[in-house]
Amino acid sequence: MVPKQPNVPKVIVQKFGGTSVGTIERIRNVAKWMLATQAQGYQVVGVVSAMSGDTNRLVDLATQLNPQPWSKEYDMLLASGEQVSVALLTLAINSIGGKARGLLGHQLGILTDSVYSSARIKQIDTNIIQAELGRGVIPIVAGFQGVDVENNITTLGRGGSDTSAVAIAAALQEKGVVVDCEIYTDVDGVYTTDPRICAKARKLDTITYEEMMELAGLGAKVLQIRSVELAAKYQVPLHVRSSFDPVEGTRVVSEGPVLEQVVVSGVAADMNDAKVTIMNLSDRPGLAFEVFEPLAKASVVVDVIVQASATDKDGGLSLSFTCPKLDLPRATEIVETQLRPKFPKMQITSESNLAKVSVVGVGMRHHPGVAAKMFGVLSEAGITIKLISTSEIKITVLVDADKAKLAVERLHSAFDLDKIS
Amino acid sequence: MVPKQPNVPKVIVQKFGGTSVGTIERIRNVAKWMLATQAQGYQVVGVVSAMSGDTNRLVDLATQLNPQPWSKEYDMLLASGEQVSVALLTLAINSIGGKARGLLGHQLGILTDSVYSSARIKQIDTNIIQAELGRGVIPIVAGFQGVDVENNITTLGRGGSDTSAVAIAAALQEKGVVVDCEIYTDVDGVYTTDPRICAKARKLDTITYEEMMELAGLGAKVLQIRSVELAAKYQVPLHVRSSFDPVEGTRVVSEGPVLEQVVVSGVAADMNDAKVTIMNLSDRPGLAFEVFEPLAKASVVVDVIVQASATDKDGGLSLSFTCPKLDLPRATEIVETQLRPKFPKMQITSESNLAKVSVVGVGMRHHPGVAAKMFGVLSEAGITIKLISTSEIKITVLVDADKAKLAVERLHSAFDLDKIS
Repeated sequence: MVPKQPNVPKVIVQKFGGTSVGTIERIRNVAKWMLATQAQGYQVVGVVSAMSGDTNRLVDLATQLNPQPWSKEYDMLLASGEQVSVALLTLAINSIGGKARGLLGHQLGILTDSVYSSARIKQIDTNIIQAELGRGVIPIVAGFQGVDVENNITTLGRGGSDTSAVAIAAALQEKGVVVDCEIYTDVDGVYTTDPRICAKARKLDTITYEEMMELAGLGAKVLQIRSVELAAKYQVPLHVRSSFDPVEGTRVVSEGPVLEQVVVSGVAADMNDAKVTIMNLSDRPGLAFEVFEPLAKASVVVDVIVQASATDKDGGLSLSFTCPKLDLPRATEIVETQLRPKFPKMQITSESNLAKVSVVGVGMRHHPGVAAKMFGVLSEAGITIKLISTSEIKITVLVDADKAKLAVERLHSAFDLDKIS
Repeated sequence: MVPKQPNVPKVIVQKFGGTSVGTIERIRNVAKWMLATQAQGYQVVGVVSAMSGDTNRLVDLATQLNPQPWSKEYDMLLASGEQVSVALLTLAINSIGGKARGLLGHQLGILTDSVYSSARIKQIDTNIIQAELGRGVIPIVAGFQGVDVENNITTLGRGGSDTSAVAIAAALQEKGVVVDCEIYTDVDGVYTTDPRICAKARKLDTITYEEMMELAGLGAKVLQIRSVELAAKYQVPLHVRSSFDPVEGTRVVSEGPVLEQVVVSGVAADMNDAKVTIMNLSDRPGLAFEVFEPLAKASVVVDVIVQASATDKDGGLSLSFTCPKLDLPRATEIVETQLRPKFPKMQITSESNLAKVSVVGVGMRHHPGVAAKMFGVLSEAGITIKLISTSEIKITVLVDADKAKLAVERLHSAFDLDKIS
């Protein structure tokens, strides 16, 4: 006699981004999809972003009033976008015979800190969600938002709905629920590189949390980096898939023995970078803080930072950093006005039209020589490297923007990522 | 020596409708106006509606999913409109040096019943408002919305922001605060009749709560009828004025000895009415319910109802009612399908292109013969009266729509309402 399997209902948290709920027709499709998932015997929790375009419209209204609108009320404003999509999706499910209930951050008790516009979730009360699931209801949760202890609405930053979904999945998992977290987006998974840059890009079946974090940090728009950190911390199984195509997407998993040990999993390119180099600085404690604190205050997104040891004749220090091309004028101006009084002899040079090209892979840890191979490939292709930065599982170089496509293609081939055609 | 007046700060609740906050420029003007009021020594509480157009946009999205979307989530959806305008107005005040705080229904504790889409306020906690006022902050409250005991968002029905403003003023008054409630709108006050119909229309300096209620019921869009009821009940002083023009508007007050005892305060006309008459009904208990319950369920807005005693040869009863012209086909169809089985001999006649013309005035109570005078004026003008309905302070007649303008002009003159030119 075959032993009877215990009937453990499995919960699937399904997160749909702004494009996936961008029109009434798409909302209707999401409603049908959730009901179809439920019909397969799963309990479903929905998490949605604002309809695409809505958040930008609200940001535009706010910045007309104040170019730097960040405040309690700015979060209140933006959170209204998810309120709309939650209500509409719930209406959609209920109007085709399903049972759903919309839940906003304050109703669910998604407690965050009070860092408006980039709040962090401290606690999620899963009682309401579990009660609704038990009654066969699909809870539709507003992504991106929470409340602080004073019941002010907070938001989690752009892409924060991913984090909401993972946090809910993690909280349910903590309660002993077997859970899967599906992130629906407008691409059908994570690719070895950007298919628009390299025709041989290939969809990955699996990727590790760490690789995904590096890729997210490099501008792959698929997942918010914090959501991946959270998923890694709580070992929440993620499945990145298309909301327009029901095929299997990419699963984000722990590094384990079952995982094929490829050396490099992906090649990333960010085309719109610029580099600033400051020379003739004198080394003193707190130097980096003096340089980068004013830039952070002005919201210049500084990415790669390289500090070179004293090489110039005065024994001064030089610092280079990259930032988005658009921020370059502001960045150089800030460096000039803030640092000139302290370092009268400093020299600033800058270069725009650069691209950041990175290779990422947990396999690097066990395969020495990846960096050397990368530099060799680029050298053979006649591509000059302007800056190098490495981490345990990533090597980033800065090259001329017009060489980026070539660099990606050559690296993609050299590290065996090309499609088998 | 002049005795020192106790320094009692007076609170002004200022409510701005959708048109008044319809653009960023107008929101900025409202912000300046509130700060100017504060600079005069008043404490200000703001109450705002959704930006004009926003609510319609949301209703349209919902009805695409479900033509009858009324539910918890529908209220959640609509409430997002006020969330946007509250956040923007607060941002606007704070960005020009003022101090404001946005407060949504659930944050303020505006407790309502659970009748979604037309909830009634049960209780308002003024503690947060009073604390903010004490710190020199302008609380900006979301009109139109509240929460029920289960923390579901509720809305108060179209025009509900007026009711929110009056309820807040009333709650503050209960706490012993001296309060004024200003309703800013796109007209500069209440007129003796619609200036688009009758060129001699005159702005009223004062009007009684009761007259205002009758006028609101007759389609004067200036104030939501429930807000006037509430103001009358708690004796909240109302001031209807223009958000585009700082002139004094119309004050809605109690009937008192100081009030000039005019017989008729206003003439109202509603141009888009239709009349349905049902004959050969048999009189039996519950008849009216049988007729009007299905109409109410189908959301046909039935206005005047007249039941005539048995006059036809079968001794049957006849019932007439008016409804908006647009609802006429639906109304006759419902009456036919619902009542025919019960009253096989009934006859239905209908007439569209009618107008409802009313004269309103508390003075009628003490002046007999107003109705007779009204009928005389219309008769002299050759206008046929199709239906008559009266209340203590109002007389309504139904006339052909193309005679409405003439009727209003003649009545306006006859009851001494014309502008002194």
